[in-house]
Amino acid sequence: MRKIEHIGIAVKDLKTSNLLFEKLFGAPAYKEEEVESEGVKTSFFMNGPNKIELLEATHPDSPIAKFIEKKGEGIHHIAFDVEDIVAEIERLKNEGFTVLNETPKKGADNKLVAFLHPKGTNGVLVELCQEITN
Amino acid sequence: MRKIEHIGIAVKDLKTSNLLFEKLFGAPAYKEEEVESEGVKTSFFMNGPNKIELLEATHPDSPIAKFIEKKGEGIHHIAFDVEDIVAEIERLKNEGFTVLNETPKKGADNKLVAFLHPKGTNGVLVELCQEITN
Repeated sequence: MRKIEHIGIAVKDLKTSNLLFEKLFGAPAYKEEEVESEGVKTSFFMNGPNKIELLEATHPDSPIAKFIEKKGEGIHHIAFDVEDIVAEIERLKNEGFTVLNETPKKGADNKLVAFLHPKGTNGVLVELCQEITN
Repeated sequence: MRKIEHIGIAVKDLKTSNLLFEKLFGAPAYKEEEVESEGVKTSFFMNGPNKIELLEATHPDSPIAKFIEKKGEGIHHIAFDVEDIVAEIERLKNEGFTVLNETPKKGADNKLVAFLHPKGTNGVLVELCQEITN
């Protein structure tokens, strides 16, 4: 794990929250992207070497809709940048972590992603992400 | 705001969680520190340009104890590195954010810190922190 790639924040309304985070960072989102398989619309803000991802649910069964229903708006996950996601999944499994998807899947922002079960990580949903380069 | 300085994670037992995050990062905490004024014991892990701060309450009135009671263990705050905390507080107040302590206070890890009210930031507790250099 080389750095915090991004922090994912669950929001009710992407448009409203984009304006809010634009004020916070003093610069607008640099892109928006829908990830149909996850049921989310996202926007990304740069912050030096890191990013902030805002996530709005596109349907009531989206994990983000369920998260907001249960906990309200707020931080949803931390994503760490990894060089080799397959090797990192293997290492973490051997350390006793539960990987929610052992085969990396395509996420937002041109990434292969995998998630660790928050029950094994002090309630924190941890995402591993590797840039897709080819 | 120049980068994510650290992510603060509320934990019930620092010793247990230190071992867990040591496995996650493949390296141990590089320091532990008690901040009496906040009622917390903390530990810090390096992750490239970023840090993870684990926080355990030292008494039942600690904000961390109250957080865990209400929401369980998990991500408590995001801290952003700022060059000039006084100027940044002023800028954010002018943008309409509520600053919980308008006068920066001494936090863990040799920092001056200030917090924004999560009601104005999509439920996210945002910390500003500036390294103390003199």
